Amino acid sequence: MSFPVIDQTQTPLLSLGFSVPSKEALVKQYVGKKLHQVRTPRLIVDRSIVTKNCRRLGEISKQQGVKVRVHVKTHKTVEATEIELDAAGTDAIVVSTLAEAWYLIESHLTASKKLNDVLLGLPVSPDKFDDVFELAQRVPKFSIFIDHIQTLDALESYYEAKFGNDDSHRIHAFMKVECGNARAGAAINNEDSLELARRLVSSKVVVVEGLYTHAGHSYACRDNESAVAFLQAERDAAINYREFLAKNGVHIKNCSIGATPTVMAAGVATKQVLEGITELHAGAFAFMDRQQMATSLADTSDVAISVLARVASRYPERGSILLDAGGLAFSKDGSPQGGFGEIIGREHWKLDKIAQEHGVVTEVPLEDFEDAPVGKVFLVRPNHCCLTAACFEFYLIIENGGDEIVDVWVPVRGW
Amino acid sequence: MSFPVIDQTQTPLLSLGFSVPSKEALVKQYVGKKLHQVRTPRLIVDRSIVTKNCRRLGEISKQQGVKVRVHVKTHKTVEATEIELDAAGTDAIVVSTLAEAWYLIESHLTASKKLNDVLLGLPVSPDKFDDVFELAQRVPKFSIFIDHIQTLDALESYYEAKFGNDDSHRIHAFMKVECGNARAGAAINNEDSLELARRLVSSKVVVVEGLYTHAGHSYACRDNESAVAFLQAERDAAINYREFLAKNGVHIKNCSIGATPTVMAAGVATKQVLEGITELHAGAFAFMDRQQMATSLADTSDVAISVLARVASRYPERGSILLDAGGLAFSKDGSPQGGFGEIIGREHWKLDKIAQEHGVVTEVPLEDFEDAPVGKVFLVRPNHCCLTAACFEFYLIIENGGDEIVDVWVPVRGW
Repeated sequence: MSFPVIDQTQTPLLSLGFSVPSKEALVKQYVGKKLHQVRTPRLIVDRSIVTKNCRRLGEISKQQGVKVRVHVKTHKTVEATEIELDAAGTDAIVVSTLAEAWYLIESHLTASKKLNDVLLGLPVSPDKFDDVFELAQRVPKFSIFIDHIQTLDALESYYEAKFGNDDSHRIHAFMKVECGNARAGAAINNEDSLELARRLVSSKVVVVEGLYTHAGHSYACRDNESAVAFLQAERDAAINYREFLAKNGVHIKNCSIGATPTVMAAGVATKQVLEGITELHAGAFAFMDRQQMATSLADTSDVAISVLARVASRYPERGSILLDAGGLAFSKDGSPQGGFGEIIGREHWKLDKIAQEHGVVTEVPLEDFEDAPVGKVFLVRPNHCCLTAACFEFYLIIENGGDEIVDVWVPVRGW
Repeated sequence: MSFPVIDQTQTPLLSLGFSVPSKEALVKQYVGKKLHQVRTPRLIVDRSIVTKNCRRLGEISKQQGVKVRVHVKTHKTVEATEIELDAAGTDAIVVSTLAEAWYLIESHLTASKKLNDVLLGLPVSPDKFDDVFELAQRVPKFSIFIDHIQTLDALESYYEAKFGNDDSHRIHAFMKVECGNARAGAAINNEDSLELARRLVSSKVVVVEGLYTHAGHSYACRDNESAVAFLQAERDAAINYREFLAKNGVHIKNCSIGATPTVMAAGVATKQVLEGITELHAGAFAFMDRQQMATSLADTSDVAISVLARVASRYPERGSILLDAGGLAFSKDGSPQGGFGEIIGREHWKLDKIAQEHGVVTEVPLEDFEDAPVGKVFLVRPNHCCLTAACFEFYLIIENGGDEIVDVWVPVRGW
């Protein structure tokens, strides 16, 4: 079926000359300062923990003999991507936006060949094809997701209009398949999915990379055993999908599976659990957070980020302290433990109520007020690292739990 | 009691040369384009509705004979502030961050005398005094909140160290008082609050502006009657507070009260309901959202903002459509109606599940898929305008429900 070529949309980042805040100016302003000397709220990243977490992923990859693809949506920075690639021993990333793709592909990581393989991790809409083919010129391998036949129709129309019969611009694509969380992905045992797979493998504009699943529902695991069970289920779903296609004459070999809990679980699973899997992907593992702690596969020593906040006021009569950090610093995401984060070193306090800029801490015992004067800074462990990090224009970097700033990272924002 | 002068923190915006994206470049890129031609997700603002909403506030102000102070935290832009000031007939704003204060005070609004009165709407911590006194030089009146005696102690120490006996730099301050939502504010019938009030009125570094309350809990109202009851309760709480102080010999005349639901309720309340109140404040009224619709004081025609999103994929077999907008476009805030927003013109669809960049729409009837191809744009009415607007580096402006872009507004971010 033909699909009209539609208007193409631009990544605003480009016409704005990559207008992220200047790292140089920020480094000059912040490096060498202590945490209590900076404006709050602010995201603090412990680089040593990021490195440790990425090495853990690298060890899992080596132990299981499976390549990893690291998700950069959690941090959206060049610096953390470099640590991920180095420590996890890979040259492949997945991005959640085209802005991330541009930012990283135009960085030194591609020039230095550390980054060779970029996947856009959301089914691409046809208005973005200009960007897709432009980016594909700038990195050895650029891949997209296709999980509906209209997208392939649109891609073929676009390709023909742009390149005619020249087949040298074929684009790499994963077929995204649904494996239980009903977020994205083509359904199994479905005639339309089969038709899509058939069309993909025979398409003149696509190079099929494999099947791709994401076990988002694995966040519900609460111990190693259930995490391994989720991993096993995700692996089985991917392999079943491959067999469903094969039985119907469509052969797609590679299977990429993962989510931080299941990939962490791969570290405690036998090799059989991953049989037939060619790639693991994960994102939140680099920063970690309370949601990951709830899965039991991470503890406080694995959480690399925290929100620096200050005591803005104190209400001993109601056992409450007001922090100058609210929904725009923590995000409104929850976690199974409750609250919007926990105050490091004061875990018995509750951060149960937040407004845009207000963090209302309750259940503060009277005796705790003496050491919590107005202006005092605290670090707060967030619920969900991806959404919390996205609140900040830049991150201040520390090392080994210290309180001196050693670097500043500037993430890319927007779409 | 003396409080040490602590290290001062800087607003990063300044050393970065106000590094918000360039309005000029964005206007060039977007004005004249149709909505379907721009990258998604993107915040769309209907300027006509903003103006209408601000005029409604102006009418309430005139009808009640009470000055209004408009909150700019919802939009954080110069353009919407100007509409608010013009249409609501005031020269007073409240900001939620020092970045907002800098951005607006350094804009043409102060130079043109449209903006003369700026209040920082969060109890200020002592590391921010440098900024406070610097900003106070740049606008006729700059006010802060004080609701704990340590803050006043710290302010007096700072003032003495900086200005000695020169009393020409006294800073305007509201005493923030608690009126039922236990977020911020000094408690009533409390010896410490009384001591703070006594110290404030006799302080040589402060000019007391009045008492200030915020009826955040009024969002629970569901009809005009209960909204007026919340307004009455907030007014009574403020007046009671004033009387509690007066009975104890501390006389503070002015009372500023409000939140969007109670201020909207003032439009249907008698004059007696506001007796003794000298100022009303509100913020979300300019944009409105589903949370405000839930209070019954706004309907769909009052909601000025929406999130433009595209069909990224389609899963008819599970009645689901994937939009290319998730938690980083809508925020994760909820609303009493449920879901993370509603698709305009397709209100029977459900947006009940979102991930970072995925908007999973469910309950899509099979017959609706024909008119929802991949790439089609939809507008989504958000739950909470303040948190949704904060997701975007810039807003595209339309008028009268049209689909042509007429302007671009650039909000200020961070702290």
